[in-house]
Amino acid sequence: MTGSLTIVGLGPGSPELMTPAASSALCQATDLVGYATYLARVPIVEGQTRHASDNRVELDRARHALALASEGRRVVVVSSGDPGVFAMAAAVFEAIESGEAAWRALDVRVEPGVTAMLAAAALAGAPLGGDFCAISLSDNLKSWDTIERRLQAAATADFVIALYNPASQSRPHQLTRTFELLRQWKAGSTIVLFVRAAGSTDARLNITTLAEASAAAADMRTMVIIGSSTTRLITREGAIPSVYTPRSEISRP
Amino acid sequence: MTGSLTIVGLGPGSPELMTPAASSALCQATDLVGYATYLARVPIVEGQTRHASDNRVELDRARHALALASEGRRVVVVSSGDPGVFAMAAAVFEAIESGEAAWRALDVRVEPGVTAMLAAAALAGAPLGGDFCAISLSDNLKSWDTIERRLQAAATADFVIALYNPASQSRPHQLTRTFELLRQWKAGSTIVLFVRAAGSTDARLNITTLAEASAAAADMRTMVIIGSSTTRLITREGAIPSVYTPRSEISRP
Repeated sequence: MTGSLTIVGLGPGSPELMTPAASSALCQATDLVGYATYLARVPIVEGQTRHASDNRVELDRARHALALASEGRRVVVVSSGDPGVFAMAAAVFEAIESGEAAWRALDVRVEPGVTAMLAAAALAGAPLGGDFCAISLSDNLKSWDTIERRLQAAATADFVIALYNPASQSRPHQLTRTFELLRQWKAGSTIVLFVRAAGSTDARLNITTLAEASAAAADMRTMVIIGSSTTRLITREGAIPSVYTPRSEISRP
Repeated sequence: MTGSLTIVGLGPGSPELMTPAASSALCQATDLVGYATYLARVPIVEGQTRHASDNRVELDRARHALALASEGRRVVVVSSGDPGVFAMAAAVFEAIESGEAAWRALDVRVEPGVTAMLAAAALAGAPLGGDFCAISLSDNLKSWDTIERRLQAAATADFVIALYNPASQSRPHQLTRTFELLRQWKAGSTIVLFVRAAGSTDARLNITTLAEASAAAADMRTMVIIGSSTTRLITREGAIPSVYTPRSEISRP
């Protein structure tokens, strides 16, 4: 048996948002490797071995998966959302590059998925309708200076900004600082969305403005989306308002 | 019967990348509205009415869909990729805002999907592993100055850059100009990916550098991804190379 490794994105939460390609890869695996919380979302297949870990040590998890694949196993590394967006795919390629030469000959594939910002945007309307940036606020793996430089670039060039990992118990201050910075460059009336558990049945949307936005509204399961200068709110009868960024940035008479 | 309107993303091409939620919405519709090429990807359901159009007149298409929904139909607007990313969702909300008051009371939903850049990235490895921007190079709906300003911001703040709509027959020069501009701010050795028909069975990956990149390699079905300064290429035995952006941007001794 020739081993293989597929890095699969489960989507943002609901099984209804997982692609058939991801489901199929999960069914065919001999071994699943991943953070225990994500493995718990995968239906049990008889005879399959599960290797659960905590949500740190991503590189160790990647190496473990590669070692299993090189023993001839059909391994799936389980990621949330899309595996290529602030998730496990980059860790696997890092492990390949720094690891055993034989790992470079393995059949390695990435199965894309619906990343959290797309599900968050869909719940609100179409806030990502214009050019946009995705920035992780975690400074575990990059300097805070780099993050500030990117926030400034994104704000001054008027991108819509999607923030991944906006806050955690060990990092409560980054999001407060982010809002302070953005207020220097963007109008206080700029629309800000907090979407918790996007793509799950318990998803929750909170619409506010940059002037009013408070970091206390976010936790580890929250996506924060900050509008561009053209992002708009439509009040809707009998429903929560919709937020969208018009396709056109050309003023018409 | 109460009408509804759901804007659905089919994903980038293969039916294996369409979510079950999107499939379910398509099955339950009484009316499908969309660009003929996308409607052709949707399995026929008996009794369903299809309203096919060309790929322009997005706002007209949106208004037609809203009018049908307000007559009590269960309407699905069909989009490629994710409907919120350079696709139909923003057009529908524009039509709601500028349209009949009754349209604001309709049940309007967006079903997210796998957008082209995620499928393109998955084919190459994990090039979107760091902070990234998505920019549409079409200047039909925004000024070229706005696009240049965003390219400069994205390049100088060292984002990975995903370019949607990089070229079409009526716009052959934008991508050439984009590469010229980016060479002012980014190293010639920066990795550039051209991914044609990402997420389809006939997907094709072309890996080059910014110094060598030519606009002739792109057409309407191509995604262009331009690496950050840390994006790397791994040569792999018996396979095309993998491209990834490491999670860490902190130099380690």
